[in-house]
Amino acid sequence: MTIKLIGQSFSGPTVRVIICLKELGLPYELEPPASMQSLKDEDYIANKHPFGKMPVLFDGDFRITESRPICRYLVSKYQGKHNDTILIPNDVHKAGLVDQFISYELSYYDPPISKLLYQEKVSKRFFNKDPDPEVIKQAREEFAKVLDVYEKLLEGKEYLNGEYSLADIVHTYYAYGIITHSDLWDNRPNVKNWWNRLCSRDAIKTSLEETKSFWENNENI
Amino acid sequence: MTIKLIGQSFSGPTVRVIICLKELGLPYELEPPASMQSLKDEDYIANKHPFGKMPVLFDGDFRITESRPICRYLVSKYQGKHNDTILIPNDVHKAGLVDQFISYELSYYDPPISKLLYQEKVSKRFFNKDPDPEVIKQAREEFAKVLDVYEKLLEGKEYLNGEYSLADIVHTYYAYGIITHSDLWDNRPNVKNWWNRLCSRDAIKTSLEETKSFWENNENI
Ligand SMILES: N[C@@H](CCC(=O)N[C@@H](CS)C(=O)NCC(=O)O)C(=O)O
Ligand SMILES: N[C@@H](CCC(=O)N[C@@H](CS)C(=O)NCC(=O)O)C(=O)O
Repeated sequence: MTIKLIGQSFSGPTVRVIICLKELGLPYELEPPASMQSLKDEDYIANKHPFGKMPVLFDGDFRITESRPICRYLVSKYQGKHNDTILIPNDVHKAGLVDQFISYELSYYDPPISKLLYQEKVSKRFFNKDPDPEVIKQAREEFAKVLDVYEKLLEGKEYLNGEYSLADIVHTYYAYGIITHSDLWDNRPNVKNWWNRLCSRDAIKTSLEETKSFWENNENI
Repeated sequence: MTIKLIGQSFSGPTVRVIICLKELGLPYELEPPASMQSLKDEDYIANKHPFGKMPVLFDGDFRITESRPICRYLVSKYQGKHNDTILIPNDVHKAGLVDQFISYELSYYDPPISKLLYQEKVSKRFFNKDPDPEVIKQAREEFAKVLDVYEKLLEGKEYLNGEYSLADIVHTYYAYGIITHSDLWDNRPNVKNWWNRLCSRDAIKTSLEETKSFWENNENI
């Protein structure tokens, strides 16, 4: 059965799924949408994603949307089939905590770092608007507070849930855009070590390199 | 083993967990935090929720935070133990789609309706700020567009995923605050019927009545 992923390597939610596919050892075909505008076409809304977003995954005839649910679906169906990597443990308590850390990412980590990335990477390129230094300053401050919490959460642990898991993966996709703010990571030893551990994993390293080269080679998308 | 839920019946995420507990037939103790400020106490941050939020669930010694992960944990551990209600089906594809609809709620449904509710219920009571009619108008428009998508998603279906599931539950907690905007539901037959179906379930009806009476009887929290 062919796995087809509709998405783009500059899209954070897409990259999250790509890392998960690679970790599980699953072959897939990446099918970029024709354009950002095409995500709002009647056909795309009717047959791909009702809110006009990417990524969308087709596993044979089965369609599923939304990055985190796609990852969880892939784990439920394929974990252990192609290699030994465990992204969600079988134990109900450990699995619950993986889910909890995924929710920390979307509730607390994502909002300020998304704001930062939007200013640094997106607003100029897509909307020809200069980054707003005031918004950058504020987002940096908010994000620094979140990383202070992570510094404590990671105390004595190699990964968020002790062992590597899907919870770590969902945090990684911003890496390509944070170079100008890497002091935020570097100033916090637990966060820094966690980050280096993650970036040394093949699935993560290669995916983030693809994202980086996309941004470098597509000056005017 | 006692299940203890730290939270408040005026808190949407708490109500979401309460509905789930009731649906699964699980007895629990609700322990309201001393005050909203107490959520930021050192002890609360260290031993309850690192970001100072509610709800938090203790299942014996096991602690888990964040409403959606708490619900999924309860389902994984207890579904089928006390009654026959199925909130997440065993089939990996059906379960994947329940998860997808949960993500639609948090990505697309929650932001505009939260904005609306904040203006209608929260800003005056908690911050003594009058609702902003301009924000209300804009949130209503955004939310109407989202409900247009739901109207199509629900075509020919009794519930979002065909059968009743956790995906429906996560959408319900706003009901107490939408009376002034119920035309948005009433104008869309599929949405309206879905809503009535949900509100006729005991677990949902009783929980929303508790929320409503909390707001009515606590004029100045
Ligand atoms: N909640 C979705 C978010 C997906 C999302 O926002 N994707 C962006 C690309 S990074 C998109 O499709 N944007 C198109 C648009 O909003 O028009 C997920 O996690 O998959
Ligand atoms: N992502 C969390 C959100 C929890 C949340 O925002 N709870 C509110 C009450 S409704 C809270 O604790 N607010 C306290 C604060 O932010 O200071 C969840 O789903 O449980």
